[in-house]
Amino acid sequence: MMRHKVTVDGNTAAAHVAYAFSDVAAIYPITPSSNMGEMADEWAAAGKLNMWGQTVSVTELQSEAGAAGAVHGALVSGALTTTFTASQGLLLMIPNMYKIAGELLPTVFHVSARALATHALSIYGDHSDVMSTRHTGFAILASASVQETMDLSLVAHLATLKAKVPFLHFFDGFRTSHEVQKVSEISFAEMRALIDIRAVRDFRDRAQNPEFPRQRGTAQNPDIYFQGREASNKYYLAVPAIVDAAMQQVGELTGRHYQPFDYVGAPDARQVIVIMGSGAETVEETVNYLNARGEKLGVVKVRLYRPFSAQHCLQVVPKTVTHLAVLDRTKEPGSLGEPLYQDICTVYSELGITKTIVGGRFGLGLKEFTPSMVKAVFDNLRHENPKNHFTVGINDDVTFTSLTVAENIDTTPADMYRCKFFGLGADGTVGANKNSIKIIGDHTDLYAQGYFVYDSKKSGGITVSHLRFGKSPIKSPYLVDEADFIACHNPSFVGRYDLLAGIKPSGTFLLNSPWTLSEMDTKLPATMRRTIAAKGLKFYNLDAFKIAREVGQGSRINTIMQVAFSHLSAVMDSQAAIALIKEAIQKTYGEKGEAVVQQNFAAVERALSALEEIHYPESWRTAPDEAISAEREVPPFISNVLRPMTALHGDELPVSALSDDGVFPLGTSQYEKRGIAVEIPVWNADPCI
Amino acid sequence: MMRHKVTVDGNTAAAHVAYAFSDVAAIYPITPSSNMGEMADEWAAAGKLNMWGQTVSVTELQSEAGAAGAVHGALVSGALTTTFTASQGLLLMIPNMYKIAGELLPTVFHVSARALATHALSIYGDHSDVMSTRHTGFAILASASVQETMDLSLVAHLATLKAKVPFLHFFDGFRTSHEVQKVSEISFAEMRALIDIRAVRDFRDRAQNPEFPRQRGTAQNPDIYFQGREASNKYYLAVPAIVDAAMQQVGELTGRHYQPFDYVGAPDARQVIVIMGSGAETVEETVNYLNARGEKLGVVKVRLYRPFSAQHCLQVVPKTVTHLAVLDRTKEPGSLGEPLYQDICTVYSELGITKTIVGGRFGLGLKEFTPSMVKAVFDNLRHENPKNHFTVGINDDVTFTSLTVAENIDTTPADMYRCKFFGLGADGTVGANKNSIKIIGDHTDLYAQGYFVYDSKKSGGITVSHLRFGKSPIKSPYLVDEADFIACHNPSFVGRYDLLAGIKPSGTFLLNSPWTLSEMDTKLPATMRRTIAAKGLKFYNLDAFKIAREVGQGSRINTIMQVAFSHLSAVMDSQAAIALIKEAIQKTYGEKGEAVVQQNFAAVERALSALEEIHYPESWRTAPDEAISAEREVPPFISNVLRPMTALHGDELPVSALSDDGVFPLGTSQYEKRGIAVEIPVWNADPCI
Repeated sequence: MMRHKVTVDGNTAAAHVAYAFSDVAAIYPITPSSNMGEMADEWAAAGKLNMWGQTVSVTELQSEAGAAGAVHGALVSGALTTTFTASQGLLLMIPNMYKIAGELLPTVFHVSARALATHALSIYGDHSDVMSTRHTGFAILASASVQETMDLSLVAHLATLKAKVPFLHFFDGFRTSHEVQKVSEISFAEMRALIDIRAVRDFRDRAQNPEFPRQRGTAQNPDIYFQGREASNKYYLAVPAIVDAAMQQVGELTGRHYQPFDYVGAPDARQVIVIMGSGAETVEETVNYLNARGEKLGVVKVRLYRPFSAQHCLQVVPKTVTHLAVLDRTKEPGSLGEPLYQDICTVYSELGITKTIVGGRFGLGLKEFTPSMVKAVFDNLRHENPKNHFTVGINDDVTFTSLTVAENIDTTPADMYRCKFFGLGADGTVGANKNSIKIIGDHTDLYAQGYFVYDSKKSGGITVSHLRFGKSPIKSPYLVDEADFIACHNPSFVGRYDLLAGIKPSGTFLLNSPWTLSEMDTKLPATMRRTIAAKGLKFYNLDAFKIAREVGQGSRINTIMQVAFSHLSAVMDSQAAIALIKEAIQKTYGEKGEAVVQQNFAAVERALSALEEIHYPESWRTAPDEAISAEREVPPFISNVLRPMTALHGDELPVSALSDDGVFPLGTSQYEKRGIAVEIPVWNADPCI
Repeated sequence: MMRHKVTVDGNTAAAHVAYAFSDVAAIYPITPSSNMGEMADEWAAAGKLNMWGQTVSVTELQSEAGAAGAVHGALVSGALTTTFTASQGLLLMIPNMYKIAGELLPTVFHVSARALATHALSIYGDHSDVMSTRHTGFAILASASVQETMDLSLVAHLATLKAKVPFLHFFDGFRTSHEVQKVSEISFAEMRALIDIRAVRDFRDRAQNPEFPRQRGTAQNPDIYFQGREASNKYYLAVPAIVDAAMQQVGELTGRHYQPFDYVGAPDARQVIVIMGSGAETVEETVNYLNARGEKLGVVKVRLYRPFSAQHCLQVVPKTVTHLAVLDRTKEPGSLGEPLYQDICTVYSELGITKTIVGGRFGLGLKEFTPSMVKAVFDNLRHENPKNHFTVGINDDVTFTSLTVAENIDTTPADMYRCKFFGLGADGTVGANKNSIKIIGDHTDLYAQGYFVYDSKKSGGITVSHLRFGKSPIKSPYLVDEADFIACHNPSFVGRYDLLAGIKPSGTFLLNSPWTLSEMDTKLPATMRRTIAAKGLKFYNLDAFKIAREVGQGSRINTIMQVAFSHLSAVMDSQAAIALIKEAIQKTYGEKGEAVVQQNFAAVERALSALEEIHYPESWRTAPDEAISAEREVPPFISNVLRPMTALHGDELPVSALSDDGVFPLGTSQYEKRGIAVEIPVWNADPCI
């Protein structure tokens, strides 16, 4: 069955489904969930109809506490209601979540899961926020990719109506919420056809209504509170089967089949990893890679985390399994182990079966989680006494929890085309890349993925875009490590960042610079020149700032660089791509008048003609290192911590480099001169009088 | 060593220690924690000095969220700070708790643990609120009695300073927070002597200070957040030993010894219960009772719940144990099992040892938890396949989770004197009983316990005071079931409540009524007369309202009934007790002038002379039941649910009697005419013109 494909991020996928189902959305934006509420608001303002033929009533409250209270109130009045949040925002909703669950009110909270502020704040993804609500009585459903976010959003909305138990549906903040993928869209009409309309009617009938007044929110004394608290047991017992049935409905519709727990791997695996969220995709990709090389490994992907159905879990775990590594993307200091780990321990404790079960933490605050780390987890399971309560992805040189990642593996399918683009915040690089993905996604059979790394300085900081294109769905929710194509959109990055790290032999390097070949001999550091030559890179240069200036676009180089990428990359036919870029220009700028359109068309043509292949000399292969200029002495924190961070090597800092309590020294910006200006004023003495 | 004894409730015990240690308290009162903050506020207003020789700066914020923020701010500025809260109040503190823990700021939050509002609100104790914070990084310490609340408050304050990890110290709301017990007090000077003053200095040195500026609360990106999150591991690893050492210090000072986990019972027990909070006292009493009758049982009392030290836990559990029942006073719908249960499963999973471990819920919303229920839990453990995920204390006739309590046992030591008093809210009964406990506690070697049951109507509702007096510390945190003495302070209760339930043969029944013996033949229901006669009760009557009126005290019968109790009960010498009551009157009313004092003295004398033993006839033994008057038909909810509740039989309602989602019908008050007025207007036609 051919289905409508769209190239969207996880937030859009969730908001699409949530909008379809909702009468009301009570919102308060918080990163990385903001877009969901904002999109719902925009759609409502534009008069978009939900599946019931009405626009959604979207209201922004004064905080997430207010949003949760409004959700509670709207539900009690019989309106199908949703909200979107993350992190501290979700924490503020906890009191109302207990009430909503206690009163058996169906709703879905869509959460782009995010770390909590502890020693420091982090706007990035992990499951600490979701795990802080696991006792509220909400069902919890986890999506691992943009496509799953679309599909399981639908499962959540279908299931909550039948089950009466409210759902928290989550996916990893930024990693999934902001990852752009080409996915199959489910239309409102298709969703509408799956709904059990009796469940909707039952919900509306339970609303507070002056015609049939009933009392809620009573105070109960010790005589009856406990009994009342147990009266909802049967609803929770029913949830796993209801979710399973909704997954079957969605599977029949889409051809994409899910279960409360899914297993991928060898049917006779001895070692498996149990995991939830986007990390499950990485493990799946790695398991497939390693099994293709003779291993017998597996992964249990947890989708329905609450209610936790031991039965559904055990159904999918092969009987042959002897060793389980349970990975949690959260940390609960002082606990015996993280929650998913303790759940799996409990499952086997109740069976009366002894397995070797170890637990580990990964990906906190969106720390990278790569196939090489997955392999380290499997390697650990092979030890006689595997390390328990480990971390993976960092170097813990203080309490020695971390696993050593001994081997770097590249699990990417051979036909995948991978690209990295270094841009400056607000220079249009990210937008241009999103546009490229959309063009390629919409006009080819290729799957496309885009993920965009910002530093915390936002406008004016560095952005690195990570793009993948391939013939099969892309299960690589981690940064591009080995790249076919790398572009540097700003010459000031040269010598500052390790731009060519991971570029494949014979790969393509595109530079925006005003330099001639001979200038490059001094402008490009020796290590860079050696890499270019040794790897035999195809090296192209373009003075995009000059073109932008000349066609009257100031410093907006996005179109120019996009054209160069489209021309150089092998992802789709260059001419067709350029034509589509022009089409997009017409669409975007048409209403601003023909002059602006022509200006952009000129940029396209100029980019194509100015793009120059650099025929670098063989001598670059042995370019001698520059003399290291002496630098004034800096405090140890600057040399040991801040400098590696600003050079994008913060991931390599060991635990001992960080303070125990999150305290940072002051006055560090004096050491952080970034020197990223493309044009700098120079004193011209001549006109002085 | 003779120590100063005081008769106080749990809140007072905690506030006493917290006040000693604190520079600052940021408060927001919420039942049942309010008194702690209010006492601190009163003490500060009265100029009471903490152990540092200063009054505590007590500030009430706009909510618990604000209180937690103020605590965080005060701690960062180097002030030793505490707060007091419960239930939803604690939930509002969660975001700041993550921050306080992440920044390694020592503090103690004293929590009178309370149920959360779910299907209904409950102001009563269970551990749902505390369990909702177990992932914040706070250490969690549990006290099971008023004495432990005093002792472990001290442990918490000592340990947090050394550990830098913040502590949540809790005890059961109402059951411990409002239970009055005679306990041994620890003076400020004694506490001060135990402090590691270097730890205090270290804390103050870490404060934000313009002389040594440092940055906190930074935003961290994926490069370093995870490493920073692991940097505090070593502090958590150190906590159990620090708590153990503080417990040893307190043990040496007081002679009362604690460990992170304490075990009581047979050294070769096969069945044990693992439990936390006041329920541990009930289990201990029951284990001692059953072991004295040949059983080999034990109880593991969890004190340091977070960080959870498997090592300390396993140290105390006998190696002979094969079956464990883990009791949680919380409910997490959708979980595999409640948190303490899952922790114990994990402990044995990590050991690679298979034990039979079952988990159960008890005491939600302060449902009674009695020795008979404890026996049912042990009985369950003896089954081939013991029930798991059970409830105990209710009748779950819907999902059949509940254990049958097959046998009623009375585990109370033989020398214990037990009393129940039925009063009307605001009639002074509770206050008089507190006074009696204080007099007996302060002037005898006896231990004393008072617990006061209010219905939710507060003023104007029924109050039942449960008092125990005995030669050994009282480990009975449950209502008085078998009573030596029962008093009914309001004649309107006769026929309405089962006043004599549980009275022991030859026990004493004291009634406040205007009735003569012959009137009693009609005023006392037949069942009551039969019980009085069959059990050979000593039955006394007193027209307290008449005396109160006559001496000019309106309807304040508290002193009168207290005098009667003191005279009739065998707890202390009657004459001495009366003298002490008079002393208390002098003290309380002295400054209101001699007339008021004499009025009260008159009430005392009149009470003594008016107290009359009722020499009831033998015929009461066979009093025939009254004819049942036909009543207009009432809705099933009224007859099946409301009527049992108002007759104080709500505990017996099965789960099926309550709605699934907490919804109640309206218009129920029309069926709830309580008829408790002592004087009612009667129409006098004569003066009409």
